[in-house]
Amino acid sequence: MRLASLLLALAIALPAHAQQATTTIPQSALDEVPALRERALADRTGWKVVESLTTEVGPRMAGSEADARAVEWAKAKFRQLGYDKVWTEPVSFPVWVRRGERAEVLGAHAQPLVVTALGNSPGGTVEGEVVRFPDLAALNAEPDGSPAGTIAFVDYRMQRYRDGHDYGVAGGGGIRGKGPSAAIRKGAIGFLMRSAGTDMSRAPHTGATDFDNGLKPIPSAALSTIDAEQLARLVVLDPHTRVRLALDCGMGGEYTSQNVIGEITGRGPHKDEVVLMGGHLDSWDPGTGAIDDAAGVGISMAAGALLKPLHPQRTIRVVAFANEERGLFGGKAYAAAHSGDIAKHQVVSESDFGAGRIYSFNTNAPASAKTAVAQIAEALKPLGIEVIEGEGGPESDVGAISQLGATWASLSHDGTRYFDYHHTAEDTLDKIDTKDLAQNVAAYAVFAWLAAQADGNFGSAPKAAGAAKN
Amino acid sequence: MRLASLLLALAIALPAHAQQATTTIPQSALDEVPALRERALADRTGWKVVESLTTEVGPRMAGSEADARAVEWAKAKFRQLGYDKVWTEPVSFPVWVRRGERAEVLGAHAQPLVVTALGNSPGGTVEGEVVRFPDLAALNAEPDGSPAGTIAFVDYRMQRYRDGHDYGVAGGGGIRGKGPSAAIRKGAIGFLMRSAGTDMSRAPHTGATDFDNGLKPIPSAALSTIDAEQLARLVVLDPHTRVRLALDCGMGGEYTSQNVIGEITGRGPHKDEVVLMGGHLDSWDPGTGAIDDAAGVGISMAAGALLKPLHPQRTIRVVAFANEERGLFGGKAYAAAHSGDIAKHQVVSESDFGAGRIYSFNTNAPASAKTAVAQIAEALKPLGIEVIEGEGGPESDVGAISQLGATWASLSHDGTRYFDYHHTAEDTLDKIDTKDLAQNVAAYAVFAWLAAQADGNFGSAPKAAGAAKN
Repeated sequence: MRLASLLLALAIALPAHAQQATTTIPQSALDEVPALRERALADRTGWKVVESLTTEVGPRMAGSEADARAVEWAKAKFRQLGYDKVWTEPVSFPVWVRRGERAEVLGAHAQPLVVTALGNSPGGTVEGEVVRFPDLAALNAEPDGSPAGTIAFVDYRMQRYRDGHDYGVAGGGGIRGKGPSAAIRKGAIGFLMRSAGTDMSRAPHTGATDFDNGLKPIPSAALSTIDAEQLARLVVLDPHTRVRLALDCGMGGEYTSQNVIGEITGRGPHKDEVVLMGGHLDSWDPGTGAIDDAAGVGISMAAGALLKPLHPQRTIRVVAFANEERGLFGGKAYAAAHSGDIAKHQVVSESDFGAGRIYSFNTNAPASAKTAVAQIAEALKPLGIEVIEGEGGPESDVGAISQLGATWASLSHDGTRYFDYHHTAEDTLDKIDTKDLAQNVAAYAVFAWLAAQADGNFGSAPKAAGAAKN
Repeated sequence: MRLASLLLALAIALPAHAQQATTTIPQSALDEVPALRERALADRTGWKVVESLTTEVGPRMAGSEADARAVEWAKAKFRQLGYDKVWTEPVSFPVWVRRGERAEVLGAHAQPLVVTALGNSPGGTVEGEVVRFPDLAALNAEPDGSPAGTIAFVDYRMQRYRDGHDYGVAGGGGIRGKGPSAAIRKGAIGFLMRSAGTDMSRAPHTGATDFDNGLKPIPSAALSTIDAEQLARLVVLDPHTRVRLALDCGMGGEYTSQNVIGEITGRGPHKDEVVLMGGHLDSWDPGTGAIDDAAGVGISMAAGALLKPLHPQRTIRVVAFANEERGLFGGKAYAAAHSGDIAKHQVVSESDFGAGRIYSFNTNAPASAKTAVAQIAEALKPLGIEVIEGEGGPESDVGAISQLGATWASLSHDGTRYFDYHHTAEDTLDKIDTKDLAQNVAAYAVFAWLAAQADGNFGSAPKAAGAAKN
């Protein structure tokens, strides 16, 4: 009975053509791989794109003046790299503006604390006693109204992992995203958190938060890891330690940015089908957004450009997504605009986890594509990449179209150092290792090339509303 | 003839009693050393003092509200550590205040640059083309008036050495100190420099500059090393790159702070003579002044406290100097107040180069003390310390009294990482290694103990005005 249920569930989960003919990659395509890999490893295009975006545009927060410059930059860069077709698609969203931020300990141990406002935080100045919680569970466990009038301080120390999974605890899906609303429910007048970062530095990590409907937002900010440790010591010295948090930031109207899209047009009978790669064009404001995500833009632009002389059968589509940082707006707009073309997406992927070496390849392609997937995995092996069960997923902006049924592939970067710099002033060009970046480009180029040349599809199909697909 | 001149010079340079009886350290004092060394290595006092000062007072810029709190802290800490006598001596100086600082690239590549105003810089907003010079010599070589109306940018990359000697090129005695005046002479309206630091980070290095008499000061600031590299790239892209530099800072009246002095009173016939150790109590404002110079305060306070139960013959005097950072005011005031007591200073020393392991011992004691100096060196050897010819000198605040004839000793810290953090927001408690700090305390305790117990002096004697002493 339980086995029968499982088989039934699998039959429902797999798209119809999963039982169709096996997808394979022709030998002629595989024969091109060694030369392509070597060419990519020796190519400087990825690096030059990252250098150009981070230097010429610099920080480019969604909705800022630099957002528009970044769009123009991306259009020009696609053309310069020889892309056959370049266009933009509108992405609208509410703007959030940061003008200034200050925090200071008051009283006998008066001193400034380095903070960064969380994206979507309201402005305002609050002053109160600090109540420290080791994690979000401790804040949630507090009786309602108990820290009323205080500033809640969630002091969770994010741990370092290759796959960065502790960001799930500390980041947008955890403390940073849910902490402010939890604090409001308990009656707090302000929210502070130890940065969602694995560094020990004075550079605080920003990032978007959310306020649950019906709650009145409170000023919410992240302390640098060092300032969090200082405040923790001060709270031990004096449990009545008071802090003033003064944020000058807030929502600032609507803005329409653009997803910028470049294509290397396919030449075969499947040229209407696309292999999609991408990165996001926007960045947070303290740094120049090198690892997050000029790297993804550079990797995908360079990989696509490398495929042009090979005349791929399917079209290589590279998307520089707008406003990923404040709510995946670019990815959602892309999914909405292309919801009628799900099956034409051979496979979708995004690089949005820095520029560490890629160590794992994964996809949710169905069993019918397992031969092709194994062939791609084999072609990636010389780059030090293996298939690790359960790693990866549809990254950032391709999440939305994956939800609609597009098959995703992921090439997982080593994120051991990623959260040292993520969303901080230290996310700058010097953090990118040119050799690692070239390996990233090689991995994407090989993957995209083989996906474009496959005989057969990877299972993308419009999904019935509510149907589950991992 | 040349040899005769040399001998004559030597005879003048050496104080009169250099030809006197040999100074030695009695065996009973040497016998105490192993136990003292081990006690110091196991002692946590140095660390606790550094933690207390950096946490409870935090940043303590000379003349700020925190300056006064630091003085009270030091008095209380000396008493708490069991010092027999605690007093203060006034130190007056002009105050310099930092309120804010901003720099931004204008035009097609508009973006903020992270800067810190140099101490003593005037406030003001200037806007102009950036002219980059690889070093101070290049700026000095420019024809007068040639960069008129521009912002001079000296982009020297300071190199990393154990003894930190490249700070001589980049720091107060080099680009930071002399660059602004050189720029003014050439007609520049603003001065920017790559930080005098060996890090690669967004934390700029502040520090005092000086303006030569008769020149009208211009806004002067240091870019973080990463921002300097960004600006260098932008200047290559567009030689007409314009920058706006807006500093809100400037001189702010007179202030009287205090040198805070604690003594372990000697018990022998030489109890009126003092062995002086110290550090400086003030710090720059971006960090909490852990390596610069809570470390020196902690090391000397802890070393003195360790000697109390040994009942030293001479008095152990520990000085927490006021306002070292903006012009050695504490050291100069100390020298002026004690100029009549030069011979009573057995030897003077200061720890103002962080908390890296001490690797070298040196002194300008005359030949008559060479036996005692060799005995001290021998006692320091188990701590990994050797005598390296030409290393060290009278550090910071003991320079002034050394100039008056007091014999100096120096225990040189390994400064390999010192200029990664020096004068930045990253100069915080976490940069101090507890084991290294304990080694520092052990070295100072052993040195001060043996100097206090010596039979005979180390050659301190009032110097005829203008006489040379190295």
